[in-house]
Amino acid sequence: MRRYEVHVTGKPGIFDPAGKTAQTALDNLGYTGIDELRIGTFIELSCDDAVTPEQVVEMCEKLLANPIIETYRVEEIEG
Amino acid sequence: MRRYEVHVTGKPGIFDPAGKTAQTALDNLGYTGIDELRIGTFIELSCDDAVTPEQVVEMCEKLLANPIIETYRVEEIEG
Repeated sequence: MRRYEVHVTGKPGIFDPAGKTAQTALDNLGYTGIDELRIGTFIELSCDDAVTPEQVVEMCEKLLANPIIETYRVEEIEG
Repeated sequence: MRRYEVHVTGKPGIFDPAGKTAQTALDNLGYTGIDELRIGTFIELSCDDAVTPEQVVEMCEKLLANPIIETYRVEEIEG
């Protein structure tokens, strides 16, 4: 069993309406010290030993991320 | 300026339809070795120096996570 974590985040300059909305809502709750809040996706994968990090990168390119507007990073988790 | 990363994930046993859909779609693309795929939220915060980790935990409890069905972890990022 291999475990991977994938972080998918908007590229710099890409508008993040969910993040902006959360920031405004927190501001209204009194948390006024936030300069920027960005929301991305966190994906946890449990796979057969045969699934390589290169294949997880392929999955990101094809389905898990939108490479036009998002970047992603794949990490294998030990243990 | 302080930076925080927050990971919000569904509690064990909570159904994750987005993750299940992605897993099925990857299976259809030929990536059949995935045992489980769970999708959560990744939040990046840039804040004033006055914003403490305890305040970020409060933000999670009040707005960024749903503590009934989700767990979260807050990490301060150095540098």
